[in-house]
Amino acid sequence: MDFHQYLEARRAEIEAALAAALPSPPACPASVARAMLYSLTAGGKRLRPVLCLASAEAVGGDPAQAMPAACALEFIHTYSLIHDDLPAMDNDTMRRGRPTLHVVAGEGMAILAGDALLTEAFALLAREPVTTDPAIVARKVRVIGVVAGAAGAAGMVGGQALDLAASEPEHAGTPAFEADALRAMHAKKTGALIRAAASAGAIMGGADDTVIARVDAAAAELGLAFQIVDDVLDVEGAAATLGKTPGKDATAGKPTYAALYGIDEARRMAAACIDRADALLAEAGIGHSRLSEIGRWIVNRSH
Amino acid sequence: MDFHQYLEARRAEIEAALAAALPSPPACPASVARAMLYSLTAGGKRLRPVLCLASAEAVGGDPAQAMPAACALEFIHTYSLIHDDLPAMDNDTMRRGRPTLHVVAGEGMAILAGDALLTEAFALLAREPVTTDPAIVARKVRVIGVVAGAAGAAGMVGGQALDLAASEPEHAGTPAFEADALRAMHAKKTGALIRAAASAGAIMGGADDTVIARVDAAAAELGLAFQIVDDVLDVEGAAATLGKTPGKDATAGKPTYAALYGIDEARRMAAACIDRADALLAEAGIGHSRLSEIGRWIVNRSH
Repeated sequence: MDFHQYLEARRAEIEAALAAALPSPPACPASVARAMLYSLTAGGKRLRPVLCLASAEAVGGDPAQAMPAACALEFIHTYSLIHDDLPAMDNDTMRRGRPTLHVVAGEGMAILAGDALLTEAFALLAREPVTTDPAIVARKVRVIGVVAGAAGAAGMVGGQALDLAASEPEHAGTPAFEADALRAMHAKKTGALIRAAASAGAIMGGADDTVIARVDAAAAELGLAFQIVDDVLDVEGAAATLGKTPGKDATAGKPTYAALYGIDEARRMAAACIDRADALLAEAGIGHSRLSEIGRWIVNRSH
Repeated sequence: MDFHQYLEARRAEIEAALAAALPSPPACPASVARAMLYSLTAGGKRLRPVLCLASAEAVGGDPAQAMPAACALEFIHTYSLIHDDLPAMDNDTMRRGRPTLHVVAGEGMAILAGDALLTEAFALLAREPVTTDPAIVARKVRVIGVVAGAAGAAGMVGGQALDLAASEPEHAGTPAFEADALRAMHAKKTGALIRAAASAGAIMGGADDTVIARVDAAAAELGLAFQIVDDVLDVEGAAATLGKTPGKDATAGKPTYAALYGIDEARRMAAACIDRADALLAEAGIGHSRLSEIGRWIVNRSH
């Protein structure tokens, strides 16, 4: 199976699992279920769940054991997009070519749908896979700790707080400071959850601590490459391809890799990240897995 | 030790544990840490953590094992207040006599601090108590499932969505419909987390399933009593005592127990809830525990 077929097959499984994992009426109000579904089915790349399943597979585990974690990570990613798009945050009215949730359902419901997706992620991680096997139960608790740590104040939420602050004029610094601050912000804002996706897969796949640590380090490189390419595409891209206003970040005065280093250098940096990720995976003895192909997909994608 | 002394001793332990459990710089940005701390130390009653510890104790367990769950529940309660107070929700500018978080830190930071508290609650539940004992690890996963279920789309978030909808004029119904709808809304919005607090304590305390189910049912009665008394105090109370504008819910056109049944009948209903809770606790063989005293505290409180 080539990588494109692999990706499509995994995505189909993920879409089905996401739909099955989402709470629905009568257990929860129809308004909340509808709002969660609107954002969850807005056509994302499913990078985090794909990475989670590929990681479980790479370490010799059963990807089905990692599917609840894969879905939970996509719930959390989706909640973060909903809240980031709010008027009090980035104030985005379009995402992936569709109006954002607060535009169609109102701000209050968008806040609640985000809260619900975040909470349901942990409900899912606690509930599935259904097992009394102490080894698997221990993995579940470890994954919950990793995911919550990555999504919380020291991770994704902290990164968004730094991003909010960076948009304020008094925080603009020298270019050297900006490069470090940019990297630190993205390591939290997007890097932490991408690392958690790969780590969660490795943990549920039964990898030992050394392998988990290397998968985590490789995923940190993938996350950085992902963000650099995102910045490049933001400059290069057309609204039709990205589904959002191109150049928005640069116009908003936010620092970007493309602005700091130029497009060619930024692309070289992203490729170097993938090389380092490959070396880490080779050290872990899983150099020829789908994880490497995901790395190349990240740098070669057009949206 | 009389109940007042017991309550003060437990609260002192809880305050110390909450402060220790909160993430702080340099792990997380100072702005987020400050915002979380502002709302967490705003002078709440600590009902949920007290109930959680008392429940662990009532079933013969060690309350220290339930302290992480107690703190996590207060994190989640605090996040829910922060988000409910937002302009897009209830638009409250004062709570417990102080400006609400979005007034002092901005809406964006208030959304993020709420998100962080919710996420850190699950990080804490996964991390503590630190143990490799399979029986305790299994209890931790069960508690995470119970708490996430209570806080999510079928619980607290769902209740807040129903509350948002109830404020819209087209949803006003007949009085009979209103009474059922009010009860269903509060069962989710406040009842679910109060039940989760008592259940989490019983689970961490090592109770068997029959006892856990009765503690849960008793806590449902306590939660209903709590809400009825809240409505009565909202009508009776002065701004100085409640720290918020009295009669606000009634003025906002929201249905309340006081408005539907009158103050005297509402108080009788709350007392009947406590009687039913006591009967359930007696059935569980824990009739003379602090849980009964918490019930009487709930109905006799003045704020």
